[in-house]
Order: sequence, then structure tokens, then C-alpha cells
Amino acid sequence: MRPPSSPSDDLGDALTSSAAVLQATSSTSWLRAMVEFEVALALAGAEVGRVPGQAAHTIARCLGGEALAEDVLDVPGILAEAPVTGTPVVPLLSRLRNALPARARGNLHVGATSQDVVDTALALVLRRTARVLLADALAVADACAALAEQHRRTPAVARTLGQHALPTTFGRRAAGWLVAVDTAAAELQRAVALLPVQLGGAVGTTASLGDHGPAMTRFVAQRLGLAEPTLPWHGDRLPVARVASALAMLAGTAEKVARDLLLLASGDVREVRLRTGGASSAMPHKQNPVPLVLAAAAAHRVPGLLSTVLSGMAGEGERATGAWQAEGATVLDLARATGGTLCHLREALAVLEVDEERMAEGLQVHGDLLLSEAAVAAVAEETGWGPARRAVEQACRRQAAHGGTLEGLLLADPEVSGRVAPGRLHEALDPRRYLGSAEEHVVAALRHHHCFRTAGDA
Amino acid sequence: MRPPSSPSDDLGDALTSSAAVLQATSSTSWLRAMVEFEVALALAGAEVGRVPGQAAHTIARCLGGEALAEDVLDVPGILAEAPVTGTPVVPLLSRLRNALPARARGNLHVGATSQDVVDTALALVLRRTARVLLADALAVADACAALAEQHRRTPAVARTLGQHALPTTFGRRAAGWLVAVDTAAAELQRAVALLPVQLGGAVGTTASLGDHGPAMTRFVAQRLGLAEPTLPWHGDRLPVARVASALAMLAGTAEKVARDLLLLASGDVREVRLRTGGASSAMPHKQNPVPLVLAAAAAHRVPGLLSTVLSGMAGEGERATGAWQAEGATVLDLARATGGTLCHLREALAVLEVDEERMAEGLQVHGDLLLSEAAVAAVAEETGWGPARRAVEQACRRQAAHGGTLEGLLLADPEVSGRVAPGRLHEALDPRRYLGSAEEHVVAALRHHHCFRTAGDA
Amino acid sequence: MRPPSSPSDDLGDALTSSAAVLQATSSTSWLRAMVEFEVALALAGAEVGRVPGQAAHTIARCLGGEALAEDVLDVPGILAEAPVTGTPVVPLLSRLRNALPARARGNLHVGATSQDVVDTALALVLRRTARVLLADALAVADACAALAEQHRRTPAVARTLGQHALPTTFGRRAAGWLVAVDTAAAELQRAVALLPVQLGGAVGTTASLGDHGPAMTRFVAQRLGLAEPTLPWHGDRLPVARVASALAMLAGTAEKVARDLLLLASGDVREVRLRTGGASSAMPHKQNPVPLVLAAAAAHRVPGLLSTVLSGMAGEGERATGAWQAEGATVLDLARATGGTLCHLREALAVLEVDEERMAEGLQVHGDLLLSEAAVAAVAEETGWGPARRAVEQACRRQAAHGGTLEGLLLADPEVSGRVAPGRLHEALDPRRYLGSAEEHVVAALRHHHCFRTAGDA
Amino acid sequence: MRPPSSPSDDLGDALTSSAAVLQATSSTSWLRAMVEFEVALALAGAEVGRVPGQAAHTIARCLGGEALAEDVLDVPGILAEAPVTGTPVVPLLSRLRNALPARARGNLHVGATSQDVVDTALALVLRRTARVLLADALAVADACAALAEQHRRTPAVARTLGQHALPTTFGRRAAGWLVAVDTAAAELQRAVALLPVQLGGAVGTTASLGDHGPAMTRFVAQRLGLAEPTLPWHGDRLPVARVASALAMLAGTAEKVARDLLLLASGDVREVRLRTGGASSAMPHKQNPVPLVLAAAAAHRVPGLLSTVLSGMAGEGERATGAWQAEGATVLDLARATGGTLCHLREALAVLEVDEERMAEGLQVHGDLLLSEAAVAAVAEETGWGPARRAVEQACRRQAAHGGTLEGLLLADPEVSGRVAPGRLHEALDPRRYLGSAEEHVVAALRHHHCFRTAGDA
Repeated sequence: MRPPSSPSDDLGDALTSSAAVLQATSSTSWLRAMVEFEVALALAGAEVGRVPGQAAHTIARCLGGEALAEDVLDVPGILAEAPVTGTPVVPLLSRLRNALPARARGNLHVGATSQDVVDTALALVLRRTARVLLADALAVADACAALAEQHRRTPAVARTLGQHALPTTFGRRAAGWLVAVDTAAAELQRAVALLPVQLGGAVGTTASLGDHGPAMTRFVAQRLGLAEPTLPWHGDRLPVARVASALAMLAGTAEKVARDLLLLASGDVREVRLRTGGASSAMPHKQNPVPLVLAAAAAHRVPGLLSTVLSGMAGEGERATGAWQAEGATVLDLARATGGTLCHLREALAVLEVDEERMAEGLQVHGDLLLSEAAVAAVAEETGWGPARRAVEQACRRQAAHGGTLEGLLLADPEVSGRVAPGRLHEALDPRRYLGSAEEHVVAALRHHHCFRTAGDA
Repeated sequence: MRPPSSPSDDLGDALTSSAAVLQATSSTSWLRAMVEFEVALALAGAEVGRVPGQAAHTIARCLGGEALAEDVLDVPGILAEAPVTGTPVVPLLSRLRNALPARARGNLHVGATSQDVVDTALALVLRRTARVLLADALAVADACAALAEQHRRTPAVARTLGQHALPTTFGRRAAGWLVAVDTAAAELQRAVALLPVQLGGAVGTTASLGDHGPAMTRFVAQRLGLAEPTLPWHGDRLPVARVASALAMLAGTAEKVARDLLLLASGDVREVRLRTGGASSAMPHKQNPVPLVLAAAAAHRVPGLLSTVLSGMAGEGERATGAWQAEGATVLDLARATGGTLCHLREALAVLEVDEERMAEGLQVHGDLLLSEAAVAAVAEETGWGPARRAVEQACRRQAAHGGTLEGLLLADPEVSGRVAPGRLHEALDPRRYLGSAEEHVVAALRHHHCFRTAGDA
Repeated sequence: MRPPSSPSDDLGDALTSSAAVLQATSSTSWLRAMVEFEVALALAGAEVGRVPGQAAHTIARCLGGEALAEDVLDVPGILAEAPVTGTPVVPLLSRLRNALPARARGNLHVGATSQDVVDTALALVLRRTARVLLADALAVADACAALAEQHRRTPAVARTLGQHALPTTFGRRAAGWLVAVDTAAAELQRAVALLPVQLGGAVGTTASLGDHGPAMTRFVAQRLGLAEPTLPWHGDRLPVARVASALAMLAGTAEKVARDLLLLASGDVREVRLRTGGASSAMPHKQNPVPLVLAAAAAHRVPGLLSTVLSGMAGEGERATGAWQAEGATVLDLARATGGTLCHLREALAVLEVDEERMAEGLQVHGDLLLSEAAVAAVAEETGWGPARRAVEQACRRQAAHGGTLEGLLLADPEVSGRVAPGRLHEALDPRRYLGSAEEHVVAALRHHHCFRTAGDA
Repeated sequence: MRPPSSPSDDLGDALTSSAAVLQATSSTSWLRAMVEFEVALALAGAEVGRVPGQAAHTIARCLGGEALAEDVLDVPGILAEAPVTGTPVVPLLSRLRNALPARARGNLHVGATSQDVVDTALALVLRRTARVLLADALAVADACAALAEQHRRTPAVARTLGQHALPTTFGRRAAGWLVAVDTAAAELQRAVALLPVQLGGAVGTTASLGDHGPAMTRFVAQRLGLAEPTLPWHGDRLPVARVASALAMLAGTAEKVARDLLLLASGDVREVRLRTGGASSAMPHKQNPVPLVLAAAAAHRVPGLLSTVLSGMAGEGERATGAWQAEGATVLDLARATGGTLCHLREALAVLEVDEERMAEGLQVHGDLLLSEAAVAAVAEETGWGPARRAVEQACRRQAAHGGTLEGLLLADPEVSGRVAPGRLHEALDPRRYLGSAEEHVVAALRHHHCFRTAGDA
């Protein structure tokens, strides 16, 4: 019914997620991952002799891979029944049993509880979703790397507390984005790599597996490519909370880039623009930076979702009443919003145009007053810091009242002109000479990115 | 494709919302409400002469009510295009124009901006969703009222900080739920009644309506049954935040009832049970209080969503970049979770069985020590408070060490037995005589509920 | 030890709250309000005959008003002991008893539980804190009203999605702030007016008051100027959640104003400035809009605190384990952050300078393209909407490529020049003629403010 | 003025934090850490020749270690002035300069901006606070290890969804706590070890340090024992967000333990108790589990604070307006609440009494029905799973209606008694024989704890 490009029928999802992430986090994906767990469990049972080998292979053949037809899986039916038992596992199992020959049915779900199925499947879904997110993050990082490289010597004004502060380079700014995105991506990589399989049975003792629990857990973990836990972790939600935190940090990092670009693309700054801006329904002249707005909108949804996941860590007993049942859906919502942030940001960077001329103009807004810090330093070389600071402050006040340049006003100050060489002052007030380690920062960020990429490939 | 009982294909929604609320908050409902706004706007334009009457009536005929066929509205197509312009309004308008005769097309959306459409439609959706929620809240309240009435004299132990504290009645407990639910429902009623129409044009001046803005706003408000705002409120999100807060308070109130019932239904307390408990996939003897668990799970999602809506109030300028675009979807998620809380709680109350015998047993766990406060009071009548407190504390310690009843131990204390009449002490230690105003509280709550119901009917 | 201007020794509080609110919400204020409750309770007990009149008057005389010396109250000692019993009430009562003649001691705290004391005192503190907040909100509103009045015809560019959209007036913008602040202040007024006294005794039945509970509750409510609850509300946290929501809405509203001003005061916009900007430690030329930054910082802390209060509504039983004990401190933190938002915003508005010239320049950034919507309307009068939109879009594209004015390019288009009178087009492209109901909005906002002020005085 | 046991005068802090953490996170600690940064910076400047060696050593001598007297530091004065400049650094520097001989003054704060000072000091404070938290976490873990060891064979009922589910051992439960606490502690260790020094100068280029920025950063990092960042990270808040997430995960983990203990200590379960319960102000018989309640209360404050820190990641430009200024105080509040959770939990575990008898009684509440899962397995050995499940379900229903034991009812069922040996069934229904890998889990958890301790010592 729905076109493949829109795997959710929710307007919020459509605007603040990405098609690939919606697909990866869909209920169908989650339920199919539950089936993968059941297959792995049956094979593990066969491995240790808890389940007849024949039955396990029947289960793998009938349910494994893409074997299970969509209408047999019957997602709508499962969703409709799930509220009755409070878990999709009961209606899922009844459908899976129906898809099996009678004699194999009793060998399905042996030793497992609903939460084993739901948690392991969630781990699989999160790990796969992370691949999509990390691909987008890498594309974002690559785009930042290209900007850093290309604009390593493009001077631009830096803004602190909303005010023009000092010169930087656009490349240095992009280098900051680059390191942040790479680091946040590495956090997510780590968090999903630590996601363990869940297999504890009804209360975390794997009693119905006799003493086969640990061996079967190891087998299932290996088969599904998940970590092996120290213990079943029904009541310890840290593995999920860690992923949620990493998602939120990645979204927050990407939002920072989007916010910076929104500022630079604003009608008052115009140092960058998107080649394909969004049309306004009312104003033909207007080009809205739509992907940046959507990236910010998606990220805006994240911190509240994170707090929900974290406040769910405290559920009581061997399986909690309430918090756990809300966790999976919430962390998937969080992944969706993170996905929207990244994909929209990636999209914006792909059509970004940098206006070096406007950046140069930005450096002129305050004239050479922008270099007041450098002027203090230059004067201080001769007068010491205190008198220098006072002289420059006085010149700034004079400039505000009567105009003129900082250079001119300082040279008109006998305290200064008598002691500081005009050439030294002129040099000090050149924005291109007051960039400190900006270029070295770019180099460091590119090196860091190179290592990160190489590690990721390995 | 989906059965009518599951208007979302999301497992989280299926478990933590209700079918009726999912329907009311669906993207289709929201988009159809946008169409209602456009129809009302055209008719308002006709009313003031800004739009030809003929064109307005064509618009109303072609788009009004159920006139618009589902395939013409084309929700999937709109969702797929929405990210391009950052709003569903642009693709919606292109479909609506196609559904109109050519000469009426230019008279659609006259004077409005996308946000006018989205905000007004959100107000309509919230108002309608509130009706569903308030019906569930009323059913919950009615059930609480019945419990309060029926058990106004059923003694039960009250628990503070998890410990048995003093007797109360089950009716008194239900009366507390009743007042809380009614009050929270009234907050939601008020908040949705204050939701205004939005009509500000591109930047809140209604410039393209000449001086017809205020008159047209009034007309649209009346037609859609929404409040008339003092000003267009593009940048002032208080009306939505107020609804979000009221939703969260209603969900929190219902969660309190669910939490209390989960405690009473727990395997250790067993003072209530649900007639139709949830089966466990592994343990045949177990009856899980599924609707209560789901009510708690749904409510657990609420506070984080509220914080997202509230942190979106600060968007800058005449239309913000990010926060606003996330607001509508988030407040609808909040309504969905509130809906799940209420409908699952309602469902639980409909199958609740009260076990008066277990309640009586609960009062016996600590024997007559439970009435230690009353014993202090009775002894204090003769000895003053200080000596009375000391005597009762000593008796409690003795009881902990060697057993016995508080009554017996106090009578064995010459300081007490010499001064307090045994009959007075016996009376003081009868839980049924130490219920204070519990019954009066029940009466007050029922009276309050009656007023609330009557006001609601008016 | 501390100067009166800093009633907290916390750097976070110092930056993101106000001295007056820190005072009003201090632990001393809360503990003193607890003493007020105990005095009112004793007098209520005397009123109904539950406490000897003599004893009640002794209590009132020794503890009432400012009678209690700071060293007798001993706040540090109470704070040090509070964790032992989990409540400040036990150590508070022992100090109060010491301050009383022996024979009055047993008549203190009669019929009350710790939560009665804490909740009622919290209600008092919130109500008094609200007075401080509402005074700041009123000052903010008055300043907005003055700006709206004074600049009702000062044209300025409106920004949507960060882009220059259409003209508005600075007065219209201030009118939007004004209505929002007044409405949010009214929400807080309402919420604190609904705060009830708490008097339920150990488990909400007032059993130890016999049947005097309701009468004593009424008396205490009247004496303390709090609302009378339908029932004791130990387990129903809605009254506090309602105040928390109202605080958050007020903070969010003020943050919106601060965010708008930060944008207008930014180095790239410079349409307003603060007369007394903050000095930078490094850059003499820089004037940071410190109070606006601090207002935004304070407001940033609010939504998370709100979610904590709301998620505490669900505590189980007659007194919860955890959520309730965190509630009071959290809602006071919320009040502190709201106070910081308002006081810093008020401070900024008091030194705000409006630069009408820069506002006029802002309207010129896009030349007459800013009026493209108006151009469409003017052309459409002759050609219909479709052709007009196409003609204007084409002119906009041409302008982007080759420069020129919209007016000139449209007149060069034979489709337009043949049909639209040049005078009509020129008029349409005058920003001062395309302000719609902006001035009427100012009038409406001032009227609304006048009503609000008058109601507040009554 | 305050006793050393209460380093804050806030009631919320007193109840929901710990004295040691309040000390470590106090404004004095933060400001003193700022001084440490300035000293390290001066020495770094001397190292590279940017500052005269003599001056640097004067600075180190006058300001380093405990050299700076409390009245010279003047915390109250700094707090009072901080709102004027929006940062404590400006008033701090003026006091530090006064504490220096005139000729050294110009060599203070060379090349740094306020944020360098605040961020680096925050990193130091967080690292030191983490030491306190980790010591408490280790004590909690050790207590859990002792319980796991000692009760590795103490059977107890496991509760899922609030219902009695199957047997476990108390040691297995404690083993789960142990692994969770150790893992969460390791996350915090890692996060604080990654905290980098901040040194970027006004806009992140270290322009005023010429090309000495990187070398001086390395020096300061080494001296202060902080990590060396890839780049200055003014705009990249991930290092702080990572600590905040780790704090929240540790608090959530500890809250889980506290919630479990509150359940076990509840008046209805009574499987554990605290030796030194809290007295009630009204009810002499009552012993409240105060430290557990306070641990839960403290943890309750955490998720909202985390969301505030995370939503602050997105600040725009080279230094944000609002979010950053709220970050430090919020993450310290988060550390305080985490500290309260851990210290109160530690305190509770130190006085915990385990009641093995009550645990044994808990296993009897449902009689042998508790082993229904085991009965299905035993019967299924002979009949296959389907018939076994049906037979046991039928027996469960019969038991509910007419009483009896599961064993008796199954043996009365000819389908069962004809096929299953009575001895096999009897064995299957023995809770001590249905503990699966519970003991192996204990061993694994203790091994994990041993490794963690050893690693921590190294």
C-alpha cells in the first residue's frame, strides 16, 4: 500500500526520520529478528542435545532467513493480539508453530521466556540500525572532512555568545564538526558491539535448560553475532541504556553541526546556502534550508526519549511492570530521530555552497576592532599587559563614539605610538595572521578521521 | 490492508496506545483536519469579500466533509513528499488544487501560511482526541466511584513507604483515585477548550488579507469550534504546551491508579485480581495483570515527551527552525501514550475483583501493632503524650523481641494498666473504629464526581 | 556569612536564578513555612476542641511569626539529621518541642503526618515564590507593552526558518511577546491559587483527629490562605504538577522572548543592543548580551526538571517510596530556574536599545524581493493567481541570476506590464503598506495587557 | 558556619546527595579547580617561552595547592559578581590578580578564554567526584558480592510482572546486581578517563598563543592528569555528555538494586529488613526503610537532568548562548543525585538483614503450582510438549477451583499417571532442583567482580 520510500504512515516519522532507518526499525524487522532468535535457539538446543537435531533443522528450514512468508508472519494480526498478552511473543509463537510440522512445534522456544526473544531481537535490530546510522554519520564526516580540507585557509568570523569574536577559518570550524561526529559515531559503534544476547528463561536461571544455559547462550550469541553476557540481564538494562545514550550523543553532535549551518545559512549571515532550498508556499523569493530545519527538528525529539529509556532502568523484580515494556519502542523512536537528524544533515551537506566572499565581509563588520585581542598583545609587548589593555579599551570606546579604525586610534595615542612600531600593529590587526593553530587543527582532525575510517574498514 | 483494530503498524503504539486514539491522531486525521481548515478559510474569505462566494462554495463542496476521496487525498504521497518542503502543506495543497475545478484553485489557501494550516489542524485533532481520552477517563472515574461506593466500609491496610501503616478502607483509596482522575480530566477539558485557531499569514500580520485578518479569524474559529486567539500565535506555543501538560497530568494520574492496583494485585498482596489475567508463555499457573502493566508502560513514555514539547517553546523568530517542526508529532505521541494508559486502566477496572478477605488478612500482618498510633492516643488521654509514646514504643520493642499483642503488653505495663481502662484500650485497637473521616471522604469524592459529570453533560 | 545578595552558595544557582527567588525557595523559607503549618494546626485543634486553647496559644506565641530565633530553628542541624529519618519534620519537631514549655509539647503536630507538614509548607513556599515570579513577569510584560506601543509603526523584517520573510513591525513582535507572557503569568496565578492545604494524618483518613479532620482542614486552609482540598491528597500530586507545568510554561515563554532578543542583538543582526553589555575577558571590543544568555541558560534547565516532577505522579500506595521525596526539591529547582529566566530577561529589557535604522536596513537585504508575496497578489488581481505566481517566480530567478529589482523585472515582463498598473505594483512593493493587521494586533495586545493588569490589581 | 557533614544548605541536596559528593562538587571545589588550571597554564606558558619562568613560578607559589586563602578566593563575592559577566572567571581573575605581585599579573590567564577555565575545571571536578562515586559503587558491589556468595543456595521466589514466577536464589539475584553495578562503574571510569583538558583561546584557534597552543595543551593535560584532546572542544560537548550518561546509567543501576530491596523489605514481602529502620513521627511500630527510599528519591532526579545536558549539545557557533552556561551546574546536580543514590544504597546494604525463612515461605504461597513450568517439562518427556502443557493447565485450573497440589492433581490425571513416574514428578516439583544455572551465575558474577577489582587496583 505504501511506497517503499515511506515505511511508516506517520507524519512525524516521515519528517524526522529516514526511510532506511524506518525500515530497519519497523515492527516487521523486529518481529523477523525474533524469529531469528527462535531459529538460533533451536539450533543451540540441538547442539547441546536439548532439542532433537531433526526438529531444529526443520525449524531452521521453515522459519530461517526469508523462508517465512509475510502473510504467515502476519504482522497486523500479531499487533492486534499483542495487547492481550502484553507481548508480541505469544501471538508470534502461535503463528510460528502453525508454520511448522506438528512434530517440530514442541521444540520451538525451548527454555526461553518472552523477554529473551524481545531483548535479543531488539539487540539485533539496534545493531542493524546502527549500520545505517553509521553510514550516514560517515558520509557527514566525509563531507566535513572535505570542507575542512578545502577551506583550511578560508578566513571567517567566529561567533561567541552570538557576537563576532575573532577570526577563525571555515576549515577549522568544519574540523571541529569532523572530530565530534567521528567520536560520536565511535561511541555508537562501541555501544552496539557490546549488545549481548539475552537467554535467561522465565526468571534468569535458565532452569528449563538444565545446565545447558551457558553453552546455549554462547552458541546463540555466536550465531547471531551478538556479545555473550556475563549473566542473563533481564533486570539490568544498561546494555540498552548505553546504546540509547550513544544514539543521543550522536544526534546531539549532528544537531550541533545543523545549528551552526542554520546560523551560517540564515538570512542575516548568508555565509553558506543550500543549492536546492525549499520553496515557501507563500513567498516566491524565499529559499528555506529545509534539510537543516528537519535535522534540527529530529534531534529536538531525542533528549526526552533518552530520559524515558534511562528512567526505565529501575524496574523492580525479575521482570518489571511497565518500564521494560516501554523501553524497546522508545529506544527505536530514539534511533528513528537520530536517523532523521543524520540523513537530513547529510542531505544538506551534499548541496552546501560556501560563500567565501560573504565570509570575508563578515570579518569586516567590526572593522579591525575584531582584532582587539591581538592589538592588546602587540601593545603589551612594549607596555606590559595592564597599560595595553587600558589603551585598547579606550580606543574601542572612542571608536564606538566617533568611528575610525582601531589601528588609527591606537597610533593617535602617544602612549602607544611612542612605543609600538606601526608595522607591528598593522601586522597584528591582519585577520589572516591571527589564526593560531587553526590549520594545524584541520590537519589533526583529518588525521583523526583517517584513523577512524581505517579502523572502521578493518 | 490493516484491520480496523490496529490503525498503526508500530508495535510500540499497539501496546501503549488505544485503537481509538491511534485513529484520532493518525496522519490521515491530521491531514483531513488541514482540509477542514482550508474549507473554513475559503468560506471566511467569501464572508468578507476576499474570495468570490462561488469559488468558496466550490471548495467547500469538493473538499468539505467526507467529499474528498482517500485516493485523491493520497496520504502516502503527501508523506513521501513532505520532507522535500519540510511541511505536508505544500504537497497537500497541490493535491487539493487538482481536486478543484481550475477557476477555484487560486482561491484556496488565500492569506494563509503552512503553519496556519498545521496548527489549526493540530488544534482540531487534539480537541477530538481529547473527547476519546475524556470518555475513557470518565469510564475510569465511574469505575472508581462504584468501588468507592461499594467498599466505603471495607477495611484494608494502608501502606506508606512500602510499610503497613494504619487501617483505611478500600473505598477511601478509590475515592482518592476518583477525585484525582476527575480533576485531571477537567484540566484536559479546559486546555483543549482554550485551543485557538491559527491564522497569521506568512509572518503573523495577515498582510495578504488586507485588514480582513481579524474578521476571518473569528469566522474560521466559529466554524471549526475553536477559540479565537488574541493574536496569531505562531511563535507562542503556550496553547499546545498547556494541552501537553494536561495530557501528562492525566496520564500521571491514571498511572498512579494503575501502580496502586499493580501493588494490590501483586503475588505478595493479592487484595485484588483481574478476572482475565494474561497467560504466560512459560508458566501455566501465572496470571499476569497485563492491562495494568500496559497502562504503566504507556504512562512511562509521557514525561520525556512532555519535556520535548516544553523545550520547544523557545523557538526563535516568527517561525522557528526545528522545535516547532517536531512539536505536533510529539504532542500526538503524548496523546497516544495517554490514550494507552487510560484505555488499559479502564479495561483493568472492568475486570477487577476485590478480595475483601485478603484485605482483612492484610490488617492482621502486624496484629494490633498496626494501631500503635491509636494506642498512643488512648494512653495519652490519661498520661499525656510523652509518657504514652514511650510506653507504646517500649511495648512495640517487647513485641518484636518476644511476641504477644500490643494490647496485652500495654495492660502488663503498670504505668498503663493503672490508668487506662482496658475497654478503652481494646476499643482503640479495633481497626474498624480507627478510620477517621474515611467514609466522609468517600461521600465528598462521590459528590465531586457527580458535579463533574453534571457539568460535563451540560 | 553570605552577602544578602547571594542566598545560595551554588554557582549554578547564582547564574541561573534570582536572589529574591533563591530567598523565597530556601530551605529556611521552607522550614519556616512548616512551622507556620504547625501553628495553624494547633489553633485549628483548639477551634474544634481537639487541643487545649491555652496550649494552642502558647504554641502560636512561641513559634508564630518571627518569634522563632534562627538558632533555635537550627536549619543546619535539621539538614544534617534529615537523612536519618528521611524527612526534615522529625528533627524540626524535636527542635520546636524544645522551644515550647513542657506542657504544650504534646499538643504540637496533633493529628498530622510528616507529609502534611511538608506538602502544606511547599504550597506556601510556591505561592510566595510565585509572587516574586509574577512581579518579574509583570515587569517583563510592561516592558514589552512599552516596546509594542512605541514601535507600533517601526517596520522590521520578519524571519521564518531563519530567512527574511516579509515585513512586520517591531511593535507587532513585542505585542506577541506581551500576550504570551501575560497568558503564561495567568496560568501560574491560577495554578498557585489552586494549591490546597494538606491534612490527612498518617494515611489520609485523619483518624487521629476523630471526626474533626474536615473542619480542621478548613480552618488551616483559611488561616494559611490556601485552597481547601476535596480530600487529603497525599497520593495525588496533581496540584504540584500543575504548578510545575505552569512554571515551565512561563519559563518557556520568557525564553522565547530572550531567544528573539539574542537573535536581534547578535553580531550579524544588531537591531537591538543592551546598553550595559558584558565585558569579555579576552576581547575588549566585545559586548556580550549577558542577561539574555543567562535567561536562556536558566530556561534551558526547566524541561528536564518538569519531566522529573511529572514522572513522580505515579508513586504507589498511601505514600510513595522515592518519587514524592524528590518532588519538593525538584519543583523548587524549577521555580529557581524560572526565576532566573524572568529576572535576567527583565534586566535585559531594562537596558534594551532599539536601532530603528538597522531595522530599516534589514528590510533592504533582499531589496523588494521581500515583497514577492505582495507582488503575486497585485499581479493576480489582473491575471489570476496561477499566472501571477509564475511571473513573480520567474522574476525572482532572474533577479538571483542577473540582479535588478523585482519591480523593474516585473515591469519588463510584457505579461505583467501589459495588465498591471505600474503605480499599483510600486505600492504593493512598499513594505510600510504591507503590514496587514500588525497595528491592530498591537492594540489588541495592549488591551489584553490592560485587562490582565486590572484583574491582577483586583 | 555549616557543620562539615552538610556542605550544602539545600534540603533537597541534604536528602538526595552525599556529604562527600556535595563537598567534591561544591562551588568552592570548582573555583579551586579553576585556579589549578590557571597555575598549570602559566607553567605551560613558561615551558614554551610564552610566559617568563619567574612569573610562572610566582603564580604557582601564590596560587598553587592550598596556598590561596579562603578569604582571598572569596567565593561569596565571586558568586555575587558572576551574573554581571555571565561567568565566574572574570571576578575570579580579578581576585587572583590581587593575590599576585604586580609584575606577575599580566602573565595570568595568558591565551585562555573563560570557557577554557570553566571546562577544564569541570573536568577536574568530575574526575574527582567520580572517585567518590566509584568508592561508593565498589562498596555496594562488595556488599552484593558478599550476599551472592553467602546466599548462593538460598532459594527464593522470583517475581515477574509482580507475580510469583519460579524459584531462584537470593544469591543469583545479588549476582545480577553485582554485574550491573560493576559494569556501570566501569562506564563511569572510562568516561572520566576520557575527559580532556580545554585550551582553545577565545575562539578555539589559540591565536594568542602563536603556534604554542598544541604544546601548551599537552603540558596542561599532563600536569592536571586529564586527557589531551584532538582539538579544542568548545563547541563539542560530547566529553561532558558521556560523563553525564555514565552517571545516569550508574544511578539507574543502583536504583534498580534499591527498588528490588524496597520490594523485598516491603510490609507484604518482608524477605529482607534494615537493622536500623527509620522511625515514623506518628506510628511507633513502623520501621521505614529510609536509606532505600532516599536512594530511590535521589535516582528519580537523574533522567531529567540527563536530558538537559544532552539537549545542550546543540549550542550554535564557537560558544553557545544558553545551553553551555547551564551545562556544568546541571551535570554537577546529576553527580550529586548519583552520589545520593549510591551512598544511601551503600548504607542500606550495610544494615541489611536477610530472612531466609520468609524467603522459604514465599516459595510456598502458590504451593507446588510455582513449578508448573517444570511439571510441563517432566510430563512432556513422556507425552510431548502439547499434551503436557494441556494437562498442567487443566490441573492448574482445577487447583484454582478446588484446591489441592499440582502433584496430586497430575497424578490423578490418568493421561499423566499412566506415563510419568511419580518419583520423576515429585523431583520436578522440588524448587531446590529447579534452579538451573543460578549457582553458576553467582560464580560468574564473582569472577567478573574479582577481575574488575583487580583492574581497578592496577
